[in-house]
Amino acid sequence: MPQPKIESTEELSASDARWVTLKRIHWSDPEGKKRTWECAERKTRGPSGIDAVAILAILRSETNAFPPSTLVVEQFRPPIGKFVVEMPAGLIDAGEDPEHAAIRELEEETGFKATRVTETSPLQVCDPGMTTANMKLVMVEVPIPDKLEMPEQKLDVGEFITARVVEISKLAAELKEYEKKGFAVDARLSHFASGFELAGRLQQGAL
Amino acid sequence: MPQPKIESTEELSASDARWVTLKRIHWSDPEGKKRTWECAERKTRGPSGIDAVAILAILRSETNAFPPSTLVVEQFRPPIGKFVVEMPAGLIDAGEDPEHAAIRELEEETGFKATRVTETSPLQVCDPGMTTANMKLVMVEVPIPDKLEMPEQKLDVGEFITARVVEISKLAAELKEYEKKGFAVDARLSHFASGFELAGRLQQGAL
Repeated sequence: MPQPKIESTEELSASDARWVTLKRIHWSDPEGKKRTWECAERKTRGPSGIDAVAILAILRSETNAFPPSTLVVEQFRPPIGKFVVEMPAGLIDAGEDPEHAAIRELEEETGFKATRVTETSPLQVCDPGMTTANMKLVMVEVPIPDKLEMPEQKLDVGEFITARVVEISKLAAELKEYEKKGFAVDARLSHFASGFELAGRLQQGAL
Repeated sequence: MPQPKIESTEELSASDARWVTLKRIHWSDPEGKKRTWECAERKTRGPSGIDAVAILAILRSETNAFPPSTLVVEQFRPPIGKFVVEMPAGLIDAGEDPEHAAIRELEEETGFKATRVTETSPLQVCDPGMTTANMKLVMVEVPIPDKLEMPEQKLDVGEFITARVVEISKLAAELKEYEKKGFAVDARLSHFASGFELAGRLQQGAL
């Protein structure tokens, strides 16, 4: 397969854009002074008021054949011009709740079927100085009865996503390997790994 | 003080925008097919190629007067129309490296002076399906010799930021409290807290 690549980039007017737009916000600050702020916004937000979900899948071996693991996805992201490693994620369909979106997107992008939602996060804002984008993180369980095998994904036409199983306790180290290989790392996945790693260091008194 | 509020919002053309713009990317996918993608981009990125830093500050009591803690900031974010709780963060100045930006922004937003940078993350992308925005997470140490007191911030005119000390092991619970109080929570801070919390649950065999 040829490598994906950026051919060219051009400025896009908000009126011509289909997926994102720019907004100027007129607001009054805590001293009552009138100010403006510029931001970007997705045009796709539905009645749920939530743009997207990310999925933290916990793969558990029912026979203790492997340690607790999670799923990450690799895909070429045109805004970055590189392959990016991220948690599985996707936009919420109209009328869909975050938990169903999470189970659906996980199966589409990785083939794995979650059997249980263990937690849905509060609403999170992705980059609140720059965009209105928001999301929820949904934690799900994926029990693995026997041998760990990669199931078939259910990708849409035009989606090119590679799913990988990563041992949770090795996630931070894996992300460093991804960087060495030329990948960009999603900030949310990276912060999750940093939190996990810091807990280990605190536990060991190594802080 | 009056509460900040949104007065009105209007579509903004890319040519009129000063801080953000829209781009249309022409790219070829892994099958060689020509496609387009829309995204938003900051106009402020300097020669470092990195838009911003976030700071994970570890406050350590030299007299063991309090448990390991970190700093979060609260501020009204016009794109969200709410107060948001986030890690201290800021854009990198032209010619500045991420570590200096982190120490500078931490002192401006919280008043605390970091004495040591313990780690700078690989480059992270903030929302790679929607924007080109990128950042690094810089971990710094802030030793507290005696009593924990909030130092004076060094905010710019028009910046309204409240800094708070949070015990790291209580961060996830604190973020739930923030949501109850009507705050939005930054996704990166929230993912960090989720990673920390999951490590504790794995440690206890509670997964």
